[in-house]
Formats: sequence, C-alpha cells, structure tokens
Amino acid sequence: MPGTRGRRSDAEVVAAVHTAVVEEVIDVGMGKLTMDGIAQRAGIAKTSLYRRWDTPQAILLDALEAEFPQESPTAAPTGELRGDLVEALRLMVTWLATPTARATGAILAERERYPELAESIYTRVFEPKGGRFTGTVLRHYADTGDIDPALLTPVVLDIGEALVLKCSLDSGALPGEQTLTDIVDQAILPAVGHRR
Amino acid sequence: MPGTRGRRSDAEVVAAVHTAVVEEVIDVGMGKLTMDGIAQRAGIAKTSLYRRWDTPQAILLDALEAEFPQESPTAAPTGELRGDLVEALRLMVTWLATPTARATGAILAERERYPELAESIYTRVFEPKGGRFTGTVLRHYADTGDIDPALLTPVVLDIGEALVLKCSLDSGALPGEQTLTDIVDQAILPAVGHRR
Repeated sequence: MPGTRGRRSDAEVVAAVHTAVVEEVIDVGMGKLTMDGIAQRAGIAKTSLYRRWDTPQAILLDALEAEFPQESPTAAPTGELRGDLVEALRLMVTWLATPTARATGAILAERERYPELAESIYTRVFEPKGGRFTGTVLRHYADTGDIDPALLTPVVLDIGEALVLKCSLDSGALPGEQTLTDIVDQAILPAVGHRR
Repeated sequence: MPGTRGRRSDAEVVAAVHTAVVEEVIDVGMGKLTMDGIAQRAGIAKTSLYRRWDTPQAILLDALEAEFPQESPTAAPTGELRGDLVEALRLMVTWLATPTARATGAILAERERYPELAESIYTRVFEPKGGRFTGTVLRHYADTGDIDPALLTPVVLDIGEALVLKCSLDSGALPGEQTLTDIVDQAILPAVGHRR
C-alpha cells in the first residue's frame, strides 16, 4: 500500500521517472531539462537517478522507448489488409494523444538544437518498433504475397503517417475514424495496387 | 538612389514592412510581435503603419498572403499531368525554404494560442491560392477528363503536401528532386487512377 513502505520497487521507480521526465520536458522544454528537475518531480533522490542514467536525455529516450506502441498485423493470414491498416493508424492516433507524443514533438521541433537526440528517437524508438505505422502491416502482406514487395518504397510506407500528421496539423485535432478509413482506401491501398 | 530622396514609394514601404514583420515574428515570436517592433525594423514611423494596418496580426497576414505562391497547370491540355504535379511540389519546396514559410510554421505551431490567426492563414492565404499544392493541377486534369473528379477527395488532394512535410520533418531537410518524383509516381498518380 502507498505510504506503508519506505521504498518503492524498481519498476515503480522507473515508471515514476518515465512519467516525470515526459511531464518535465513538456513543462520546461528541452533546454531546461535537468537531473534535479526530474528527481524532484519523480519524488526520488538525485543519487538514485544517477545509479541508472547518466544524463536527462538518456532518461527521456528510455521513457519515449517504453511508451511507444508496437503495431502488429493480425496473427493469421486473414487477408484483412484493409482492417489491419486502419488499426495501425488507430494505434498511431492513440499514441499521438499521449504526453509522450507531445514530448517527442517538442524534441523534433528543436532538432537543429538537439540533432543527436532527434536522431536517437528514430534509431532507438521509431525504427525498432516497425519504422512507420502501417509499415509492419504492409511488410506482412508483402510476405504473404498480397502486395508486390517492390511497391513498398520509403514514400509508400510513409503515406499513412504523413496524412495523419497533415490532417492533425491542418485541423488542430486528431483525425477521426472516417478520415483514417479514407486515408487507407483513397491513398494507401491504391499505392500498393489494391484499388477499392 | 538610396539616400537622395526623403520618401520611399508606397510599394517600397509595403515591401519593407512585409519583410520586417516576417523577420520580427521569426526573431521574437508571435507573443512579442508589436507595431513598435515592426516599425523600427522597417525603418518607418509607427503612425505610417497605423495609416494602413490596425494590428501586427493584420500586417503579418498581409505579408504571408503577398509571399505565398500560386500554382498553375501548364496552359494547354498537354496531358503532362505527371510533370505538372512535380512542378507543383517544387513550388511548395521553394516556398518552404523562405522566411515566410518559417513564419507560417511558427503561427501554426502556436495555433492553440492564436486560433483566429491560424484560421485566417487557411482562409486568406492557402485557400485563395488553390487550397493545396497539387490541388490546382489535379482539378485542372479532372476538368480535362484525364482524372475521375470523384477521386479528388480531401485526402487525395493532401497526399503531396503531406509527404513533402513528413519527409522534411523526418530528415530535417527539404526533399530533393528524386523524392518529389517518387511522391508523384508512387503516391499521387496511383491515387488518381494513373498507375505507372
């Protein structure tokens, strides 16, 4: 029970630190992210932070990595390419609504100032989880023979993410279910040779 | 000759003010944009500013409007849909490299704080110039019968802009000629029923 034990478990500490670093970067920005600020917000001693991490950036990357979702195609080859693509975009929209996504956006917006950190987000967070939302699904259906693998170029793998982000930018709100279906039907499926 | 006349022409004053407001918003941000700051940077009296504009926002909108390019399909029905689409994306990339585009991005990034100004950028700047890069071209070829007009949905009209922006965001640089051609060949043309 909270308050009855003097120590939190390792997992509890890590979770508290992850939450703290994301809140902190949204509040104060990358330029003012410090070990002190993170420790205070997480309610732990700074020495405990240093036992596990060397820099605020390392903590932030750990947190972004832990919170980033992994998309997966449905288990069996159901041929449900369309449904799986919509589901992949739903996963992206769900993630975009989280504080972690806001923190990621804050870093990418300042990539000129923090080029290595921005680069690490791609190599440590995005790429290990499939590179792009819809990427895992599209490659799965290329493997099953439903899609010509030659069509899965960087541009085509990016269509879904690009349109979800553009739509959010233009409207100031995350796209709803109908827009996600439209993106799949009108942009992704034609590009992989599946006309409606 | 500079320095030999006491007064600049009206057009010169307007051009100086347009340049000044864009530089000022990039330097100090929307929150600190003032008539004083703009007047000083443009080297004119504040009273001259007020003769033409009521607010710093009005000046900014005027400047963004004046600098935003207008895409146009080639004059005759050459059937050169593909070339015209690449040219439309080139026009977008050229604009993205300007200070005006950076100022526009600064406003859209703060749209929660300046919703009316952000809205005005869409209604006064983007939409009157064709709504979306590639939009004017696509509608032209729908008129000539080369594209089924039913395929020109909001999502499809947005594919080109979305991929150019996404590519810039991911790489931190504007897309080159090969990427623009790939966007047209692999994403836009399939979506309007023109497979490679």
